[in-house]
Amino acid sequence: MAEPTKHVLLMDGPDSKGLIYHVTGVLYRHSFNIIHNDEYVSPGGQFFMRTEFEAGSLLTGVAHDTLDGAALLNELNTTLPNAQGITFRLNPKRKKNIVVLVTKEHHCLGELLIRYAFNELDADILAVVSNYNVLQPLVSKFGIPFHHISHEGKTREEHEDAIRRTLNIYEPEYLVLAKYMRVLTPAFVNHFPNRIINIHHSFLPAFVGANPYRQAYERGVKIIGATAHFVNNDLDEGPIIAQNVQEVDHRHTATDMAIRGKDVEKIVLSQALKLVFSDRVFISGNRAIVL
Amino acid sequence: MAEPTKHVLLMDGPDSKGLIYHVTGVLYRHSFNIIHNDEYVSPGGQFFMRTEFEAGSLLTGVAHDTLDGAALLNELNTTLPNAQGITFRLNPKRKKNIVVLVTKEHHCLGELLIRYAFNELDADILAVVSNYNVLQPLVSKFGIPFHHISHEGKTREEHEDAIRRTLNIYEPEYLVLAKYMRVLTPAFVNHFPNRIINIHHSFLPAFVGANPYRQAYERGVKIIGATAHFVNNDLDEGPIIAQNVQEVDHRHTATDMAIRGKDVEKIVLSQALKLVFSDRVFISGNRAIVL
Amino acid sequence: MAEPTKHVLLMDGPDSKGLIYHVTGVLYRHSFNIIHNDEYVSPGGQFFMRTEFEAGSLLTGVAHDTLDGAALLNELNTTLPNAQGITFRLNPKRKKNIVVLVTKEHHCLGELLIRYAFNELDADILAVVSNYNVLQPLVSKFGIPFHHISHEGKTREEHEDAIRRTLNIYEPEYLVLAKYMRVLTPAFVNHFPNRIINIHHSFLPAFVGANPYRQAYERGVKIIGATAHFVNNDLDEGPIIAQNVQEVDHRHTATDMAIRGKDVEKIVLSQALKLVFSDRVFISGNRAIVL
Amino acid sequence: MAEPTKHVLLMDGPDSKGLIYHVTGVLYRHSFNIIHNDEYVSPGGQFFMRTEFEAGSLLTGVAHDTLDGAALLNELNTTLPNAQGITFRLNPKRKKNIVVLVTKEHHCLGELLIRYAFNELDADILAVVSNYNVLQPLVSKFGIPFHHISHEGKTREEHEDAIRRTLNIYEPEYLVLAKYMRVLTPAFVNHFPNRIINIHHSFLPAFVGANPYRQAYERGVKIIGATAHFVNNDLDEGPIIAQNVQEVDHRHTATDMAIRGKDVEKIVLSQALKLVFSDRVFISGNRAIVL
Repeated sequence: MAEPTKHVLLMDGPDSKGLIYHVTGVLYRHSFNIIHNDEYVSPGGQFFMRTEFEAGSLLTGVAHDTLDGAALLNELNTTLPNAQGITFRLNPKRKKNIVVLVTKEHHCLGELLIRYAFNELDADILAVVSNYNVLQPLVSKFGIPFHHISHEGKTREEHEDAIRRTLNIYEPEYLVLAKYMRVLTPAFVNHFPNRIINIHHSFLPAFVGANPYRQAYERGVKIIGATAHFVNNDLDEGPIIAQNVQEVDHRHTATDMAIRGKDVEKIVLSQALKLVFSDRVFISGNRAIVL
Repeated sequence: MAEPTKHVLLMDGPDSKGLIYHVTGVLYRHSFNIIHNDEYVSPGGQFFMRTEFEAGSLLTGVAHDTLDGAALLNELNTTLPNAQGITFRLNPKRKKNIVVLVTKEHHCLGELLIRYAFNELDADILAVVSNYNVLQPLVSKFGIPFHHISHEGKTREEHEDAIRRTLNIYEPEYLVLAKYMRVLTPAFVNHFPNRIINIHHSFLPAFVGANPYRQAYERGVKIIGATAHFVNNDLDEGPIIAQNVQEVDHRHTATDMAIRGKDVEKIVLSQALKLVFSDRVFISGNRAIVL
Repeated sequence: MAEPTKHVLLMDGPDSKGLIYHVTGVLYRHSFNIIHNDEYVSPGGQFFMRTEFEAGSLLTGVAHDTLDGAALLNELNTTLPNAQGITFRLNPKRKKNIVVLVTKEHHCLGELLIRYAFNELDADILAVVSNYNVLQPLVSKFGIPFHHISHEGKTREEHEDAIRRTLNIYEPEYLVLAKYMRVLTPAFVNHFPNRIINIHHSFLPAFVGANPYRQAYERGVKIIGATAHFVNNDLDEGPIIAQNVQEVDHRHTATDMAIRGKDVEKIVLSQALKLVFSDRVFISGNRAIVL
Repeated sequence: MAEPTKHVLLMDGPDSKGLIYHVTGVLYRHSFNIIHNDEYVSPGGQFFMRTEFEAGSLLTGVAHDTLDGAALLNELNTTLPNAQGITFRLNPKRKKNIVVLVTKEHHCLGELLIRYAFNELDADILAVVSNYNVLQPLVSKFGIPFHHISHEGKTREEHEDAIRRTLNIYEPEYLVLAKYMRVLTPAFVNHFPNRIINIHHSFLPAFVGANPYRQAYERGVKIIGATAHFVNNDLDEGPIIAQNVQEVDHRHTATDMAIRGKDVEKIVLSQALKLVFSDRVFISGNRAIVL
């Protein structure tokens, strides 16, 4: 008899009565056992659910479970009285394909490369793209393609076109801005809806824009932070995935704050990516729901 | 038509297939709408679930909902194929009756009294019991009975018997040890299983026992903490409900650490009580599950 | 022989060579022993120092120490080659006189009253002033004058004039805005330079202005905070004294965030007051230096 | 005229009157300007001071400053009335030579290698030593010698002797235990007094010894942490340099806690090394003083 394997079912859409009942009913009739079920309904009436359950392999169709995944999804869709607008995802691919965009700072990129090298990133880094070549030596240590696409002598559109041509080679599922210090145009961002993740070097919404540690110093803050978020058309305004903070005091110069901040930035970015790549993050308007 | 009101259903017991399905099915057939459902299965196979749903008033039995609460619980029990060992609680009473035990320190007690005075405690403080009379003036400001039960000249058993006689007057659902600095005997504790909540002035399991801030100072720790937990027979060993911490440095004397620690203690205790009194805390062996 | 007693010397002014040397020289020649010396020079060249030293009583003039405090300050001033603009303070009065301004929320006020009742505030609360009478019953428990000065039917200036007439009775050294929810005019603020302390219900500079928890919810932040700061002419823009934070997630409504935020607010305010009232806070432009 | 350069003077020893005065007097007579002065006297009467000052280059002896560093140290020693037991250090070498010991886990080592590659470690990693060869590929990317010294078939003493023979080649100033999972003998530790730094995977003193995340899980803690400390003869008992924490909840398995803990471990270790290597850490009994 097949060992039970763990499956993950994700579901979101407009709320209506009986959603949990109908979905768990399908699983129950196949004798699947739910290990963990996390559900959230937003004030706006949007339903989100993440269900972990154990079953014999869905794909091989053993005795008590003659279904494959497609059949299960079909059954779920036809069982719901009100399936309009509901999206199901079953066992989404764990390893995402990503391209990382950087400028000159290494701390976030280094963090991602080390995690990738030890299979801890839940993603494959297909390539690194930068408007400078400073980080090429680091990337080459890990055997990953590095594309230096300078912005010099190019309009913003020309530069982004050049980046997109390179991205087209790799067809990444997500773009990770690991301290990519140029603002992206709405046109560019629109090509990757909810698929660009940025690390912002401040506790958003404080200190939007450039040079936040200088701003933090001038203001004499006692705590600094970092924010990982999806990028949408408004600068620094997409759904927040993760944040963390670090205490500082008046003895810290703006430079000291930046150094301390880097430790927060790279951990926050890594933890946000872990959440997104393990399919725990849903988007509800301008908020990220983490199940 | 009656306004929908919010109800809370709590459930725990041995895990088996179909629990969520059968419970949500009962709710669905009554056209109740689940707003939030949080479920957890422990590695040991214990099932915990907290369900918030909207319904017409369960008690008055309007049109589409001719059930009262007792009938609903009965239906739930009979619907489950495997109800053995399963406990349901429907709309547990929000305001718990408590007695607070203190010694001489006021910071936790003051916190509870202020919250109580403004109806923020989810509990009624029936009385305060102390082995000293130091805090009587504070308690009397809030019009709450204060019982000074000195331990002097009494054996531990005699003292606890005296306390129990006073508690018998009030029949509290929970005892809150808000810096009660005497160790309770197992015999006493056994009378209140999972109903005594203590605030420990350290980050447990570090610095078990007396004088933790002196220990923390001697050890030169950089962070101190506090822990709210249920009391069982082993000193400082019951399920942990909430913890928090505060940074310190070498300039803090043991006294300074104690002062800083008090702020953490009273907030941690208050937040733990809020969780317990709003019925969000389940106990699984030596762990507290917060849904 | 007199027991050594602890004294505190505060000093600030323009930096120049030899300041520490000359000051410690004066103390050394009187055989005073420095226990702790904390010094900071701002990037703008402002010098701040806090010195704790042990001496025989400065006032009684025993054998080796025939000075009183005034004579010591005089000696310090004449010893410095460059005393222009330097301010010395010796053993500033520990207990400050304060008036607390509130509106309707009790959590910060309750915190201050309890601390005051147990002599932990380093201040005497001379009176509480409010534009509502909601908190009168709480204040009366502690035997402190409560002045209800309604803003209704008054211009802002008339209302502030009425408050100032009441403040004139008490001549407080500091005003504490413990959730006083009205914006003060620059004219009012100018009467109390660096003497008004406010608790802002957000992690400044995020969410300036009203209703920050609603803003935080809409933005889906993962961390909320509170900021205690001096009030100057710009709303929410004075030097920050203390900040702290608390994690939240998508399940927290704006109301839940506000409840959690209150715990942070009152602790941050209390800790900021402790720093200010123990004369550890210097102001350097828009930054607070905490020695 | 020479640009002023920044110098650091470190001083520790038994406290006596006039220490700050005499030291700052020497600096003043050479027209050196103190930028920052941080001083601490332990309750046991030990004096610690860290002074940053600006001067023309001490070594070249320009106009107003005909001293070299050795002459300045000599002058300091002869000026103090009570120099017995006082240690001065002037401009200690910023880049320390270190050897890193690891077992199989990469997260702390990877962190150190990336920082080293970008000149952020304040140290040169001379070599990495491990009882396994798992991390050799990672180390080789950075061009650093890797010594695989297996413990198999060796007594503890034989294994430590083999390690010491390798260390003798490099003569490191510090050993960094970046998740080196074997207990060192007192004999070994005694060769490197206050020169071995360990990262412990828990919030010490909680969960001393092996498998702390399993212990943390069993105990149901709500916060986990990590501790960087000097190693002395007692396991997990040397002076604590830095600590940090991370919130967890009942949903985290022991494995999840370990994964979260790794992020804390590597940042705490890095921040502790930064403090030690920039000569900000003094040792006072079992406490680390960070100036």
